[in-house]
Amino acid sequence: MKSLVIQKPNQFQMVDKVQPECGADEVVVKVAYAGVCGSDMHILHGNNPFVVYPRISGHEFSGVVAELGNDVSGLAIGDHVVVDPVINCGHCRPCRNGRANSCLNLQVIGVHRDGGFSEYQVVPAGNVYPISNKIPLKQAALVEPYTIAANVFERLRPCDGDSVLIYGSGVIGLTLVQVAKVLGIPSIVVDIVDEKLAVAKQLGAEHVINSKKQDVEAVVMELTGGEGVPLIADAACIPSLVPQILRLAAPAGSICLLGFLSEPSELMQMEVIKKELTIVGSRLNNKMFAKVIPWIESGQLNTEAIVSHEFAFSEFSEAVKQLENSPESTRKVILAF
Amino acid sequence: MKSLVIQKPNQFQMVDKVQPECGADEVVVKVAYAGVCGSDMHILHGNNPFVVYPRISGHEFSGVVAELGNDVSGLAIGDHVVVDPVINCGHCRPCRNGRANSCLNLQVIGVHRDGGFSEYQVVPAGNVYPISNKIPLKQAALVEPYTIAANVFERLRPCDGDSVLIYGSGVIGLTLVQVAKVLGIPSIVVDIVDEKLAVAKQLGAEHVINSKKQDVEAVVMELTGGEGVPLIADAACIPSLVPQILRLAAPAGSICLLGFLSEPSELMQMEVIKKELTIVGSRLNNKMFAKVIPWIESGQLNTEAIVSHEFAFSEFSEAVKQLENSPESTRKVILAF
Repeated sequence: MKSLVIQKPNQFQMVDKVQPECGADEVVVKVAYAGVCGSDMHILHGNNPFVVYPRISGHEFSGVVAELGNDVSGLAIGDHVVVDPVINCGHCRPCRNGRANSCLNLQVIGVHRDGGFSEYQVVPAGNVYPISNKIPLKQAALVEPYTIAANVFERLRPCDGDSVLIYGSGVIGLTLVQVAKVLGIPSIVVDIVDEKLAVAKQLGAEHVINSKKQDVEAVVMELTGGEGVPLIADAACIPSLVPQILRLAAPAGSICLLGFLSEPSELMQMEVIKKELTIVGSRLNNKMFAKVIPWIESGQLNTEAIVSHEFAFSEFSEAVKQLENSPESTRKVILAF
Repeated sequence: MKSLVIQKPNQFQMVDKVQPECGADEVVVKVAYAGVCGSDMHILHGNNPFVVYPRISGHEFSGVVAELGNDVSGLAIGDHVVVDPVINCGHCRPCRNGRANSCLNLQVIGVHRDGGFSEYQVVPAGNVYPISNKIPLKQAALVEPYTIAANVFERLRPCDGDSVLIYGSGVIGLTLVQVAKVLGIPSIVVDIVDEKLAVAKQLGAEHVINSKKQDVEAVVMELTGGEGVPLIADAACIPSLVPQILRLAAPAGSICLLGFLSEPSELMQMEVIKKELTIVGSRLNNKMFAKVIPWIESGQLNTEAIVSHEFAFSEFSEAVKQLENSPESTRKVILAF
């Protein structure tokens, strides 16, 4: 089988490998489609501290069950499946407290261990979710990005009637807009590119604000009658945004941060205390596949809208060029196997 | 009746006032004891933006029911009572979501309206909580400071087996240590004064760390096997502590901030995302009187340990001097009426 191996930072090659063996609790998936994520680029360039090279990247993939371990039940050869990349130990403190994605022994498929940029991959059966074969496998590969958005709302703990302010109208911002819509949460989206905001609007954003042209604080405060917004998700991940985000949060509001940023942001504790805010991080997903798959199966999510380019698996270097040279015009890039 | 009126910042005087009239839904309380809080000092010095002068301060008080409005039930003249200073409207978004202390129309007794530094005060019946007359009224006046600590843990949402790291061993730190003990949460306390740490230890802290003499990060990491602490409460309120707090939080950990600080702190988003942390503010208390009163009635809280000085109501200026000139040796100061 062909696998795309990142041998060391900035050096990848297509390698002929032996098809992986299937353990008793494992499943071999014949990969059909895999999304390329910003974090794959970080792995490619040596910017992910959790990665040991050589590594097969890829944590957003769909496929067909090719082989089943002896102890696996509930799945059959030929099933269409998607793979949750988060492998948790199940017995540490965060796992016991229902926080699988903060597991002390966390293993992420495509990061800590080999992932979906391979014709076949072996994964734990517990991470394999069947998906209706009425759903194209290309669409199925997009379950994972939507679990990121679902996890953000899980962390934000919305109350009835809440609205959300979303910074950034890239792939994550657009999945947030759509998940907000499924959850009945009106959204306001901020970005600096009109074309991106137009997509957000088309996907259900109630209001969009171009922060290069409009005063975000004035517009948001007018829209909310001066109260601010109960929920804020920062998918723009610019460190200097935090003070504005704190000002725009409504009393008892929740803010979700998503940026793996090493540069510090300014935290105004006065705002946090005065309004009794909650600031949360969101990382990966915490058992969100079972929540998102039915949304996709029922057609509630417009998955096509987040994909801008498709390449053959063999054209990975083209996919990288597209992502890195034209970020403004690129949304999700998908590899077809 | 005598009332202590802050006429304007830095100018207070004892004034003879007419006893307040009792509305249909109100109760007149004959004040017995009132605690003096740091926020009373802020009001005295003009550093509380919510205050309009003249103002009678005081939001920690106990007393006896002197008069009842026509529509009040469940209380009788002569009942020993304590008063929750948080008046919420009950119909705004935070109120509907169970966040009374973030009410958009918040009124705090002793801040937005007149409080307990008065021989009598009229308050809404809904804010009056009976307390066993077996509990000395002096002790009853300390319910409010413990509700601050109870609210911190409500905001932190502890899980079974969690421990807490508490910064600061002043009045708030000591109430946190005691409430942690009631909740079965082992605590580690950090301060710079050995005498204060000794009190924390005596009140049930499992470990104490003098940050002037020991490397807090090394000690905490050793105590937690390198995992960090699931719960952290910052009652030291020093802006520069935030980066250390973020480093010491365990994966899936929660951090509660308490400082009304206008100077920014450094927020390392990387730590927040990597460990999927939750950072919360805590302000006043959210209906915690009903929780704390039974803890006091059952003797689970050592209220005497947090009081260091008692003055007659008429000696308010002495109380101020004590608080402001000897912060190191002063814990809670109580006024007797």
